[in-house]
Amino acid sequence: MIISMRRNSTRQEIEQVCERVRDFGYKIHSIEGEERVVIGVVGVGDVTPCLESVEAMPQVENAVRISAPYKFVSREFRREDTRIRVRDCEIGGEDFVVMAGPCSVESERQILETAYAVAAGGAQLLRGGAFKPRTSPYEFQGLEEDGLKLLDRARRETGLGIITEVMSDRDVDLVASYADILQVGARNMQNFALLKCLGRCGKPVMLKRGLSSTIRELLMSAEYLVAHGNPHVILCERGIRTFETATRNTCDIVAVAVLEELTHLPVLVDPSHATGKRSLVPALSRAAVAIGADGLIVEVHPCPEKAMSDGAQSLDIGQFHRMMRDLDGYVALRKQMTAALTPV
Amino acid sequence: MIISMRRNSTRQEIEQVCERVRDFGYKIHSIEGEERVVIGVVGVGDVTPCLESVEAMPQVENAVRISAPYKFVSREFRREDTRIRVRDCEIGGEDFVVMAGPCSVESERQILETAYAVAAGGAQLLRGGAFKPRTSPYEFQGLEEDGLKLLDRARRETGLGIITEVMSDRDVDLVASYADILQVGARNMQNFALLKCLGRCGKPVMLKRGLSSTIRELLMSAEYLVAHGNPHVILCERGIRTFETATRNTCDIVAVAVLEELTHLPVLVDPSHATGKRSLVPALSRAAVAIGADGLIVEVHPCPEKAMSDGAQSLDIGQFHRMMRDLDGYVALRKQMTAALTPV
Amino acid sequence: MIISMRRNSTRQEIEQVCERVRDFGYKIHSIEGEERVVIGVVGVGDVTPCLESVEAMPQVENAVRISAPYKFVSREFRREDTRIRVRDCEIGGEDFVVMAGPCSVESERQILETAYAVAAGGAQLLRGGAFKPRTSPYEFQGLEEDGLKLLDRARRETGLGIITEVMSDRDVDLVASYADILQVGARNMQNFALLKCLGRCGKPVMLKRGLSSTIRELLMSAEYLVAHGNPHVILCERGIRTFETATRNTCDIVAVAVLEELTHLPVLVDPSHATGKRSLVPALSRAAVAIGADGLIVEVHPCPEKAMSDGAQSLDIGQFHRMMRDLDGYVALRKQMTAALTPV
Amino acid sequence: MIISMRRNSTRQEIEQVCERVRDFGYKIHSIEGEERVVIGVVGVGDVTPCLESVEAMPQVENAVRISAPYKFVSREFRREDTRIRVRDCEIGGEDFVVMAGPCSVESERQILETAYAVAAGGAQLLRGGAFKPRTSPYEFQGLEEDGLKLLDRARRETGLGIITEVMSDRDVDLVASYADILQVGARNMQNFALLKCLGRCGKPVMLKRGLSSTIRELLMSAEYLVAHGNPHVILCERGIRTFETATRNTCDIVAVAVLEELTHLPVLVDPSHATGKRSLVPALSRAAVAIGADGLIVEVHPCPEKAMSDGAQSLDIGQFHRMMRDLDGYVALRKQMTAALTPV
Repeated sequence: MIISMRRNSTRQEIEQVCERVRDFGYKIHSIEGEERVVIGVVGVGDVTPCLESVEAMPQVENAVRISAPYKFVSREFRREDTRIRVRDCEIGGEDFVVMAGPCSVESERQILETAYAVAAGGAQLLRGGAFKPRTSPYEFQGLEEDGLKLLDRARRETGLGIITEVMSDRDVDLVASYADILQVGARNMQNFALLKCLGRCGKPVMLKRGLSSTIRELLMSAEYLVAHGNPHVILCERGIRTFETATRNTCDIVAVAVLEELTHLPVLVDPSHATGKRSLVPALSRAAVAIGADGLIVEVHPCPEKAMSDGAQSLDIGQFHRMMRDLDGYVALRKQMTAALTPV
Repeated sequence: MIISMRRNSTRQEIEQVCERVRDFGYKIHSIEGEERVVIGVVGVGDVTPCLESVEAMPQVENAVRISAPYKFVSREFRREDTRIRVRDCEIGGEDFVVMAGPCSVESERQILETAYAVAAGGAQLLRGGAFKPRTSPYEFQGLEEDGLKLLDRARRETGLGIITEVMSDRDVDLVASYADILQVGARNMQNFALLKCLGRCGKPVMLKRGLSSTIRELLMSAEYLVAHGNPHVILCERGIRTFETATRNTCDIVAVAVLEELTHLPVLVDPSHATGKRSLVPALSRAAVAIGADGLIVEVHPCPEKAMSDGAQSLDIGQFHRMMRDLDGYVALRKQMTAALTPV
Repeated sequence: MIISMRRNSTRQEIEQVCERVRDFGYKIHSIEGEERVVIGVVGVGDVTPCLESVEAMPQVENAVRISAPYKFVSREFRREDTRIRVRDCEIGGEDFVVMAGPCSVESERQILETAYAVAAGGAQLLRGGAFKPRTSPYEFQGLEEDGLKLLDRARRETGLGIITEVMSDRDVDLVASYADILQVGARNMQNFALLKCLGRCGKPVMLKRGLSSTIRELLMSAEYLVAHGNPHVILCERGIRTFETATRNTCDIVAVAVLEELTHLPVLVDPSHATGKRSLVPALSRAAVAIGADGLIVEVHPCPEKAMSDGAQSLDIGQFHRMMRDLDGYVALRKQMTAALTPV
Repeated sequence: MIISMRRNSTRQEIEQVCERVRDFGYKIHSIEGEERVVIGVVGVGDVTPCLESVEAMPQVENAVRISAPYKFVSREFRREDTRIRVRDCEIGGEDFVVMAGPCSVESERQILETAYAVAAGGAQLLRGGAFKPRTSPYEFQGLEEDGLKLLDRARRETGLGIITEVMSDRDVDLVASYADILQVGARNMQNFALLKCLGRCGKPVMLKRGLSSTIRELLMSAEYLVAHGNPHVILCERGIRTFETATRNTCDIVAVAVLEELTHLPVLVDPSHATGKRSLVPALSRAAVAIGADGLIVEVHPCPEKAMSDGAQSLDIGQFHRMMRDLDGYVALRKQMTAALTPV
């Protein structure tokens, strides 16, 4: 941590700041500039409390963090990629994993038809919401436990793993008893009560990046999960909110490459929410393969215009099959190039 | 709702869209443009499901909502301002209400000292967090129920009302048994499970605007509370996230005036989170009075540099007292000008 | 400047970085942390070139600036407020200066009618565009020199000073021969060719903040003007671009208070562009007075619905007169409070 | 265009609005809703002036555009892709075109060394700035005409085409006499004086998207160029400004796919400015190929840490060569898949 004092700070003011820092157990390296004094702080562990404390001192101009505030999720803590096994597939390994299905579980017929179709197209997991976060209280809120039962039925029939969202710490045990992966939606990325609960749920968790969350905040929320006991965390870039309105959100595709540098956790892309528009989904999915994402979570519905939610961004089954064939070449090329890099 | 068809849509495609609209119970007014066909849809109630459905039809270019998707919170539903009585004060009426106190309840001594001091300065309510949403799992998470008990003690000693945050639907009953107003933090503005619970909690709720939530979304979350049974909702502008880093957030001060037009609910400003910097708090507070806010929620700590959180944006007691004196003139002027407008 | 090395940097790599820094004439204070090495750099002048150079070295994690990169415009360079005299008024002094008029100069009748009306309402300067930056090539682009002549005529008749926009370095001499203040529009805030030219124009310049420019960038553009010879610079907050669409832009009102701390230059608010909506202009104008702005630039048109541009955000004459009366009380209160602070 | 009236509008108010619309030469289709009256407007051409006029009428709630405000650049105006021939290469055709070189032209040795190296790596054009837009007046501003001469020399030696930036309408003729393509920087995307001049310059123009410009605004600026006589326009996505600070900008990669739908103009990606960080450039470049961009403009410097600008985001020559080999497979795959789609 680096602390900049205000100009004209007195000896005594500087000493007060240094004392505060030492109270937190850190060591001091003072630099005396010609224009202002800058204090370097050295030590291990999370400096946040110390940083906040000195920032509140009136003689301090500002304080800047040098080390990352997360630990377990960092690449420095663990070099090798985390690989998460879910039924027959491995997320974060060599495969490009596709999770596909409707926004909401609507009926037995709808979910079974979709499950068979996405399995035939090459998906490894079935997505589908039973608890739905909706902006309006008047919109369809999901089938709740009945929806979970239908997902379970689809899993038994098709062999696909199940990923579904949990919205409240009250529902964690229930959802964990059905799902293979529990999803945290973008609006709950900083629902810390929920994260703590999911740290102890015993199942992998997919954490979607919040609409206006930085990459650092995403990693801090992942750190919550790991610090509370759950190392099986998958991250998901699903678009952030910007001024652009041509798409529903703005996909920060480069976040995938940034996260590859900063963390060992797997990273997926959600091209459906990132674009909000069906016609853009295949193009973004190709880019996700090329940039190095570990997989996709994509919305598919047998009849998008009858979907109870997110129809405009859902692929129909034919479109999903065509997209998967289109991606095959890119996935194969990527494997081949990675193999060329791997020392024998 | 207005639906724009793609160019060169056929008669049959247009008829399909019209049929879908009629399935939802709405009436059609078709406009035939020279370049493209536009379909007007007329009817009462929330058109969201219909809008999403037609947007998913391939022949549709886009669909635009004309009416607001909220009802109970709108100015059209209720002309007169909602006034919420909390102990001796009324929020949303003629008074400018100030809620002040530390970010976190830390100790008996800290909260009592602050309570007496903000009461002396003219605050009507005491703020203080017992459950703290922290970005890092390694930071202080609040005293939980012990913190609530300390707030209760401070209320008994000073007569101030209490506002404190609730972070999980599990804690709603507990927090409601202590607090006069329950606060929903910015990161939970779209925690719909929590909002539903708070609809039935029997106490007023203050809803902070999310970091990247639009004014419309803020009103939709308020609509959740009202639709689930709680008409006593206070809104709070606390800064949104933008590219600017000179301040912690960017205060959308005009949102106060926009909300005055759109809703009958009271609106507060939080100058502490909006700026993140103590020296900017008094200036923004003056602006909040001038633009017509119903009050402030502001962080005050007897020793900001020893605060366990948010010290840099907390006023000390002397600063708070000076600010309150500074605001007096503006509040008096505002009352006088409002009175001049009121017909006898 | 503070340079963080990557973990596991070698002695030799660290020395290479230090050597680079010394090449730029700066001194080194090395801090050896337990986790990583951090290098402190000390010296006067703009460190940007040095910072960019070391950031490009592969062994460097990042480099952070401590001092501001601007000089002449900073409060540290000059304590007292800059006051700019234009005809009978002083901008940046004790008065609250109002510049009012139409978006575009459209006709002799329109500009004269407006000029008389805003003068009667208490404005000190007349605004009006002769060169208009329009998003579409098919929209009205301004009357150009004919518009300047009409402004001149209005000045002679009413005694108001004239502020008008210049869009190209080619037009600087022409516009400067008519205007009392030259305005740089938001889209040209970083048109550096234009700024250099305006540094030598001999007239005061009002610089509007860019749609997505930080406060630091605004000050750097002002530094261009001053460094090229023009100390008479007025800054203007006119709203920034965010995700919110309820208003045309989002007014960063706190920027006024931040600028008050960082610079000695006067700061105006443009409530018309900040909101895009006539009904919100008076409320934001009151906030601008309260937070300490030096004045307003506001759009007024005798018949807004016949305006060739920006009609929705223009006040009509009656509205402008009412707003000015409404502001009187706030301006008087502010003066009185400032006077109370001034030592005799 | 669709006009929504305020609730409770009178017959007479509605008729006033209709009259205004007819004054602009458009036809009316009135829809009478149960809650409010909505007026449909039909006609050809740009409705902007009419839209602005009715929006300014007090009885109007809002007015929404249905058709795009641009014409010549739209896919509807011209189905086939625009292909722009520059020396031996064609931009917008089947090839993936790479423009590479330093941020600034610094010296004969630097530009020649880079030119030979990027040609060897497979680039078709050499980039290099002679006029540099710099945030600070104290930073290197470019070699100006001397820089252009060096670029010309490099072209004669290597056969590469030249792309370089023009910052002022004053310099258009000069720059056009040297460059094969003139570049408009992000900060000048809405410098309309410059755009008008470039409409008549006789050379292709590459228009970079502004930091906070929407896709629609980018197309409107392109429309300026075409409407003023220059059909040879190349668009460039170079990242937009958001709240995320892990990268210099946020690359809106999906904009490439959106533009593919909306316009016939070629679209490039600038991975250097989009990321600001060398290590992220190859990954984003692969994504650019996969999503369908027509090429790249990328910064390369023989010794990035000695670069006078943008060193941190410049590849060195070895890195550029490795990236180009890495991209080869993706480009070949893309061609093969496109060929499979093309009817024989």
